[in-house]
Amino acid sequence: MARVVVDVMLKPEILDPQGRAVQGALGRLGLDGVTDVRQGKHFVIDIDGDLEGERHDLMHRLADELLSNPVIESYEMRVLADGEEAS
Amino acid sequence: MARVVVDVMLKPEILDPQGRAVQGALGRLGLDGVTDVRQGKHFVIDIDGDLEGERHDLMHRLADELLSNPVIESYEMRVLADGEEAS
Repeated sequence: MARVVVDVMLKPEILDPQGRAVQGALGRLGLDGVTDVRQGKHFVIDIDGDLEGERHDLMHRLADELLSNPVIESYEMRVLADGEEAS
Repeated sequence: MARVVVDVMLKPEILDPQGRAVQGALGRLGLDGVTDVRQGKHFVIDIDGDLEGERHDLMHRLADELLSNPVIESYEMRVLADGEEAS
């Protein structure tokens, strides 16, 4: 079994109002010195068998086109070893 | 500067309809053998100075109470070393 983790974030040049709201709230709740917050999506995907070759390429393409909006978002994908933590 | 990454996921016993929809879409788009998908939130937080002692405890509390809904979600938080990748 393979576990794939995909993190999808708005590109740096895209304004992130959710992140900005969290930044303000962290400050109001007493955490000083927060200079930036970005909020994105986190996917944990479990797949039977190995993720190699064409299946690996397909997973990358789907992370780019299904899980992300490539116009405004970028993604990072990693395949975890058996037993490795998901985050 | 400290960079904090917080991943917030629905607890395992909570139904995740977004993850279920992604699981269906991955299969329809040709990726066989997907047994589970969970979708959560991914926060990247930049903070001036070190995150130690009371500030570290406060960040944990805010991850639990502000970034998550502790009734239905759990979080994992890690502080990255300088220059380490965010995801």
